[in-house]
Amino acid sequence: MDPKTSTGRLAGLSCPLPANDEETIQMAHGGGGRLTQRLLESVFLPAFDNPALALQHDGAFLDVRAGRMAVSTDSFVISPIFFPGGDIGSLAVHGTVNDLAMCGARPIALTAGFILEEGLPMEALRRIVGSMRAAAAGVGVSIVTGDTKVVDRGKGDGVYINTTGLGMVPDGIRISPDAARPGDRILISGTIADHGIAIMSVREGLQFETAVESDSAPLADLVAGLLERAGGGVHVLRDPTRGGVASVLCEIAGASRVGIRIEEGLVPVREQVRGACEILGLDPLYVANEGKCIAIVAPEHADAALEAMRRHSLGAQAAIIGSVVDEHHGRVVQKSRIGGLRIVERLSGEPLPRIC
Amino acid sequence: MDPKTSTGRLAGLSCPLPANDEETIQMAHGGGGRLTQRLLESVFLPAFDNPALALQHDGAFLDVRAGRMAVSTDSFVISPIFFPGGDIGSLAVHGTVNDLAMCGARPIALTAGFILEEGLPMEALRRIVGSMRAAAAGVGVSIVTGDTKVVDRGKGDGVYINTTGLGMVPDGIRISPDAARPGDRILISGTIADHGIAIMSVREGLQFETAVESDSAPLADLVAGLLERAGGGVHVLRDPTRGGVASVLCEIAGASRVGIRIEEGLVPVREQVRGACEILGLDPLYVANEGKCIAIVAPEHADAALEAMRRHSLGAQAAIIGSVVDEHHGRVVQKSRIGGLRIVERLSGEPLPRIC
Repeated sequence: MDPKTSTGRLAGLSCPLPANDEETIQMAHGGGGRLTQRLLESVFLPAFDNPALALQHDGAFLDVRAGRMAVSTDSFVISPIFFPGGDIGSLAVHGTVNDLAMCGARPIALTAGFILEEGLPMEALRRIVGSMRAAAAGVGVSIVTGDTKVVDRGKGDGVYINTTGLGMVPDGIRISPDAARPGDRILISGTIADHGIAIMSVREGLQFETAVESDSAPLADLVAGLLERAGGGVHVLRDPTRGGVASVLCEIAGASRVGIRIEEGLVPVREQVRGACEILGLDPLYVANEGKCIAIVAPEHADAALEAMRRHSLGAQAAIIGSVVDEHHGRVVQKSRIGGLRIVERLSGEPLPRIC
Repeated sequence: MDPKTSTGRLAGLSCPLPANDEETIQMAHGGGGRLTQRLLESVFLPAFDNPALALQHDGAFLDVRAGRMAVSTDSFVISPIFFPGGDIGSLAVHGTVNDLAMCGARPIALTAGFILEEGLPMEALRRIVGSMRAAAAGVGVSIVTGDTKVVDRGKGDGVYINTTGLGMVPDGIRISPDAARPGDRILISGTIADHGIAIMSVREGLQFETAVESDSAPLADLVAGLLERAGGGVHVLRDPTRGGVASVLCEIAGASRVGIRIEEGLVPVREQVRGACEILGLDPLYVANEGKCIAIVAPEHADAALEAMRRHSLGAQAAIIGSVVDEHHGRVVQKSRIGGLRIVERLSGEPLPRIC
């Protein structure tokens, strides 16, 4: 998909002209009556086809085994809704599946809550729901229950989606943001800042020789492979979404009461993304990712962990970018390409709103 | 709370004048940096204080036992946000707890996803979060993980909240919308249409001698008592929210392939609510409830079920309003006060948008 097409679609969404009443979302689609039922039957049920959902109960039933369950929730409000490399539908599935993966959990079920704006073209909704179906199928997880609300024109932005995920954590895995220890190595599963730059390039109308695409992708398999090879040695997992790698490392340094030191020269960034960051005045370290993970791993497991990441197609460019240190507790320090040290501060402003 | 105060607040929300940058929601509160962290620490973490949330991970961990889990999700977009008898916060907790109860499940955890509109007064958010805390504490359930997004001014309506609930279904309980059988009795746990009329009276500026309040309340205890007394005899449970009692009965008649017959004279409606319905031209059977349940119960268990409902404070006015019949399959028929029969149709329009 090229950015221009996406921009065109966005323009269509932000000021929709209802060609036909049946072709756009109306308030009555959220009223619980005939039109709600028709929307369910024509859009949601065929796409998310599974026995739990087909029952159309107030909830779904799952037979669970005893153990440690991870639960994660996320609302997606990204603008534009369609972007190079994905759309709000695939993002809503990947985002929550990835949050579960960062808990060390394998996903077992997703829920989906839609807030639709009156006037949303039905065709856009179908496309988004189709993306969710494809993304969920790619991970092997079902959307077991859902909800649809419609808000008045001008009280939404096309569509907002909440997904909540349930997953089971294998025995022996204890991932926690406060578990980083001095000496641990810091791994990143690939190039950073792709998602944020893909979104910004659409918003700002930037043209590149080849389009920068969002890295939106499910990390469940990559993490499963990582845990298999380096299980007990993996102390922390986080996906650097809003606020980017910098914000996540700052949070981990704070939660674990350790220092973190990374080297700029070791952090993988695509050449085009680096160029776009320069044009836009952004530090790639603060730009959002949607298909990358940071792993903080005991030193004796670091090589195995890196190898496990690189073996996966989404981790081919994985790298060790630094380590946890027993100084400047709570702070992240970056060694620049020319050897200087700088403190990586938490973001105080908001360079990239509505990025996820 | 009186409706006028609520309307005043709503007006304040829909066109907020930021008195002070710290007193309203800004885009940066959703950016993942310092302001996001401050919002978490000053508003959400103190209110929803629990160990799972305090960890500030990408998700929460729950130790679950083997069994049948119910999962339900709901997004709340009600306008006005504050209304007589509750607000969007209490409603978001009760709504999802009730959906779990309708699955026969006891709640074990809730998640919360907030979509905040830029400019929302911080005081309004604190009040809503406080209501959620009180409602969750009243049910004995924790909000274990959450998410906050901020959308541009004019792309939301103050606040939208998604809650997803997990609950466990006791052994031997099989509640399902397709389980109604001819001969079953239809019970309602109390007066109908209170929620919808409370909302409409604020919107339309109606004044009553005593305020009509929403019935927003958690049904978990009432349902637990019901299942204890009449367990295996309870075939279907539903809370008649959007679309009211009529829509829920139509759905059950369709799912179970049975006919349903109710008597108008047996359906409890407050005098003031009946009066308001007449003024507004609404049939109370189609007006939303947020603290009532319909139970479809085998005839030999019906008296015990009614007694169990009436024993609970939320079920004092419970009544048997009709029965399931082996004719006009898929249809609901109402016998009027003067003896005539009419078909209760599914709603095709949308008399009450943004009611939940």
